Amino acid sequence: MLEILKQQVLEANLALPQYGLVVFTWGNVSAIDRASGLMVIKPSGVSYAAMKRDDMVVVDLATGEIIEGEMQPSSDTATHRALYLAWPEVGGIVHTHSRHATIWAQAGLDLPAWGTTHADDFYGAVPCSRQMTADEIQSGYEWQTGQVIVETFQQRALDPLAIPAILVNSHGPFCWGKTPEEAVHSAVVLEEVAYMGIFSRQLTPALSAIGQPLLDCHYLRKHGKDAWYGQKNQ
Amino acid sequence: MLEILKQQVLEANLALPQYGLVVFTWGNVSAIDRASGLMVIKPSGVSYAAMKRDDMVVVDLATGEIIEGEMQPSSDTATHRALYLAWPEVGGIVHTHSRHATIWAQAGLDLPAWGTTHADDFYGAVPCSRQMTADEIQSGYEWQTGQVIVETFQQRALDPLAIPAILVNSHGPFCWGKTPEEAVHSAVVLEEVAYMGIFSRQLTPALSAIGQPLLDCHYLRKHGKDAWYGQKNQ
Amino acid sequence: MLEILKQQVLEANLALPQYGLVVFTWGNVSAIDRASGLMVIKPSGVSYAAMKRDDMVVVDLATGEIIEGEMQPSSDTATHRALYLAWPEVGGIVHTHSRHATIWAQAGLDLPAWGTTHADDFYGAVPCSRQMTADEIQSGYEWQTGQVIVETFQQRALDPLAIPAILVNSHGPFCWGKTPEEAVHSAVVLEEVAYMGIFSRQLTPALSAIGQPLLDCHYLRKHGKDAWYGQKNQ
Amino acid sequence: MLEILKQQVLEANLALPQYGLVVFTWGNVSAIDRASGLMVIKPSGVSYAAMKRDDMVVVDLATGEIIEGEMQPSSDTATHRALYLAWPEVGGIVHTHSRHATIWAQAGLDLPAWGTTHADDFYGAVPCSRQMTADEIQSGYEWQTGQVIVETFQQRALDPLAIPAILVNSHGPFCWGKTPEEAVHSAVVLEEVAYMGIFSRQLTPALSAIGQPLLDCHYLRKHGKDAWYGQKNQ
Repeated sequence: MLEILKQQVLEANLALPQYGLVVFTWGNVSAIDRASGLMVIKPSGVSYAAMKRDDMVVVDLATGEIIEGEMQPSSDTATHRALYLAWPEVGGIVHTHSRHATIWAQAGLDLPAWGTTHADDFYGAVPCSRQMTADEIQSGYEWQTGQVIVETFQQRALDPLAIPAILVNSHGPFCWGKTPEEAVHSAVVLEEVAYMGIFSRQLTPALSAIGQPLLDCHYLRKHGKDAWYGQKNQ
Repeated sequence: MLEILKQQVLEANLALPQYGLVVFTWGNVSAIDRASGLMVIKPSGVSYAAMKRDDMVVVDLATGEIIEGEMQPSSDTATHRALYLAWPEVGGIVHTHSRHATIWAQAGLDLPAWGTTHADDFYGAVPCSRQMTADEIQSGYEWQTGQVIVETFQQRALDPLAIPAILVNSHGPFCWGKTPEEAVHSAVVLEEVAYMGIFSRQLTPALSAIGQPLLDCHYLRKHGKDAWYGQKNQ
Repeated sequence: MLEILKQQVLEANLALPQYGLVVFTWGNVSAIDRASGLMVIKPSGVSYAAMKRDDMVVVDLATGEIIEGEMQPSSDTATHRALYLAWPEVGGIVHTHSRHATIWAQAGLDLPAWGTTHADDFYGAVPCSRQMTADEIQSGYEWQTGQVIVETFQQRALDPLAIPAILVNSHGPFCWGKTPEEAVHSAVVLEEVAYMGIFSRQLTPALSAIGQPLLDCHYLRKHGKDAWYGQKNQ
Repeated sequence: MLEILKQQVLEANLALPQYGLVVFTWGNVSAIDRASGLMVIKPSGVSYAAMKRDDMVVVDLATGEIIEGEMQPSSDTATHRALYLAWPEVGGIVHTHSRHATIWAQAGLDLPAWGTTHADDFYGAVPCSRQMTADEIQSGYEWQTGQVIVETFQQRALDPLAIPAILVNSHGPFCWGKTPEEAVHSAVVLEEVAYMGIFSRQLTPALSAIGQPLLDCHYLRKHGKDAWYGQKNQ
C-alpha cells in the first residue's frame, strides 16, 4: 500500500541526518496521498540508520487511526494531521530540532527576511507562534500544536506555500511543501537563514528586513507564475 | 571478569568521539555492577583509537582499589565513585569537556529549560555547582568534586535521574543514567541544548524558562510512568 | 569549444562544496576567454554532484547570448558579464551564499582588515555595496547588481585585483581573480576572515583595522611586485 | 640528514589539517636538533596533501642559512629561529591561523584561564603580544615577530614551557613544546579554549580567571614534578 509514497517518505527522512538537521531520532517527515486520504509518516523513536521503507506508518488523515504498519507513528503525527487538514495544498511536512531554527523558536522571535537567501524560498518573515496555554498543552498537545500553527497563519493572513515554515514557540521548526522533498528543502533553507540571522543581527542590532522590491524579485524569479530560475525542462 | 559490562563501557567511551564530544582523551565513561560493588572505567590518558575492552579498569566501589586491569583508571575515578555511592539508582556516568556544556560550566551558570529539546530529557534547569574551596581542591580534589555535585542536588532537592547532568563550575559536565548508554545520551542532549541556549539567550536576553505544563508534557511523555514515546516493544 | 576552460570552470565549481561554501546549488563560478570574448559559466540550478564539463554554458560577453550549451546559464550570468566588461584584468568570478560572508552582506557592513589572514589576500577592507533602488531591482536586476559592484569600486577608488571581493548588500559575496582558481581562493579566504571578524568584533567592539605597515608587509610579500612567499619555481 | 626528525616534522605538519587547524597552507611546524644546531621546517606554500618527508627544509639555527632541501622554507622561519635561540628548552614550534585563537589575536586580548581545560595545559593566561611598530614590521618582520614574542614572556616573567603559546597581536597563535608533537598538542588545546572563552565571556562578561588552587591542581597533576595523570609506563 502506497509503496512509492513510503519510499519517498523514507528518503526524505534519511535526508535529515544527511543535511545535519537531526540528532538521534529528533526529526520526522510525512507525506499525504490526497486521493485516499492517507498519510505516511516515520515511526516514533526509530534510528535513521535502521529505518526501512516498510517501517513507515500509514495513518488515516480524518481519524488518525493506524491503517498499516507494525510500529507506532511519530509522536508528532497529530500535528502533521492538523496541518494537512487545514491546508489542502500541502503534500509533505517536516519537523526537526535543527539547532539554529530551534534557537529562534526558543527565543520566541520571528525570523525576518534579512537577505536574498531567505527571499529565494520564503516570501517574508518566518513567523514564531504564540506560546501555548496550559489547557492546550494538557488536552491533545500535539493536535493543539497544529492548531496554533494554523491560527498563526490565519491571523497574519499568510499563505503556507509562500512561507513554508513556522517556528513553534519554545519548541522548534515545522516546514512543509507540495512534496516531502520540498518540505526537506524548506527545512534546510530555514536552518541556513536562521544561522545567518543570529549573527547578522549581532553585527547590526536594528537590522531591517529587506525591501519589498528585493523580496519580490528573488522570491518570484524562483516561485512566481513567471519563474525562470533553473532549467525549464526539469 | 565483568566482560559484558567492560564491553558496554568500551562502546560508551567510543561513542564520545563519534558524537563529537571529546578532543584527545578528554572524556570518560564508567558503569557499575551493583551486585558485586565493582565499577568499570576507562583507563587514564589512553587514546580512543587504541582502546580495547580489556583496557577497562575494574575498581572497588567502596575502597577505590584497582581490582583488575593493568592500566591506571581515569583521573576522574574518585568523582564517579562519589556519585555511585550517593545515588544507588545511577548505573553509568560520563564526563566530557564538550564545548558548549563546558562554556556554561566556565561561565558558572545554570542552563535553564528553554525549550522542548531540553524538556524531553531534563526535568528542569541543569544546575551549575558552586565553586570549590581551596581546601576541597587541595585534599582529594576528584573525590570532593563528587561531593560538591551531590551537595548541589541535595540542597536544591533535585532527583538525579530526572536531571541526569550537572555543570561542574569552572570545569565541565558530568552526566549519568541508569546505564552507560543513557549517560552518553544525556551528554549528547546536554551539549545540544547548551549550544542552543547560548544563542537563544543572545536573541532574547531576559528569556524565561518554559512553563511547568510544557515541561511536564515533554518530560513525562518520554520518562513518566505513563511514557508512550517510541515503540512499546523496545 | 573552450574545453580546457570548461574543465577549469567545472573544477572551480566543484571546489565550492568541497570548501563548504555552498548548500544545494547556491554558488557559481565562471571564467572568461578574452581572446574570443566568450564566457563559460555553470548552468542554473544543477546539482554539483551531477554536473559535467559539457554542461558548462558558453555565453557571449558583449551580448549575453548563449553560444553553446543545452542548459540555461546561471541566473547570475548578467552580474558576471558586468564585472568582466568593467574589469579587463579579471579572468574568473565566483558567487556564493557562504554563511559568514553573507552575514556581513546582510548586516550591510564592510569587513575591515582586522588581521594578517585578511591582509595576506585583501589589500584593505572588503566593501559592502549600497542597497539597490527599486528601479535597479525591477529593470535588469542581475545586470544592475554588477553595475552597483563596479560603482562601489569606482567611488572608493579600489583596485579589483587588490581587493578581489565584495559583499553585495542584503545578498552575499562575489569574489574574483585572474583565474577561476584564484576566484575560489578569494572566496575561501573571505569566508574565513568573515567568520573571524564577527567574533573579533564581539570581543573588542571598537576594534581598529590593522595599520598600513602590517597591511603592506603581509599583502606585498604575497602579491607585490617583489613577492617572495611560496616557491619561486611554482 | 636528520631523517627521523624530518619524518616527525612532516607528521606534525600533517596533523594540522587533521585537527582542523589550517586552511590551504596556513600553518607550519618545525623542530630543532640541538646537538647539530639545525632546524627542520615545512617548505613555504606547499599543500599538505602533496608534502613529503624530503620536502622538509633544514636550516642553520645560528645563521638562518638553508643547509639542505630544494624548496624555500616557511615564510615564518625567522620567527621560529628567534624562539629556538631564546628558549633552549623548546624543541618544536607550530604556527597556525586557527579560527578561534586568531580571533583573540585579532581582538588584541589575552585569553584568561577560565576553566580546567585551560589549566590542564596552560599554567595561566595565554598572553597576547603588543602591536608591532612600523620599524619592526619594515626591518626583518618575521625575525622581529619572534623578538616581540620573547619580549612578552620576559616582561611578564612567564615560563615558555608552562605557557606554551602566544597570541601574536593582529596575526595568530604560535605554540610550542619540548617536541613538535607537544607543540601540535598545545595548538589544539589553545584552539579549543579560545572557542570556549569567546562564549563563556559572552554568558558572563565580567568572568574572573579560575583561582590559583584550581589552576595548580589541574596543571600540576599533568605537568608538575609529581604529575600522575595518564599511564606511568608511557
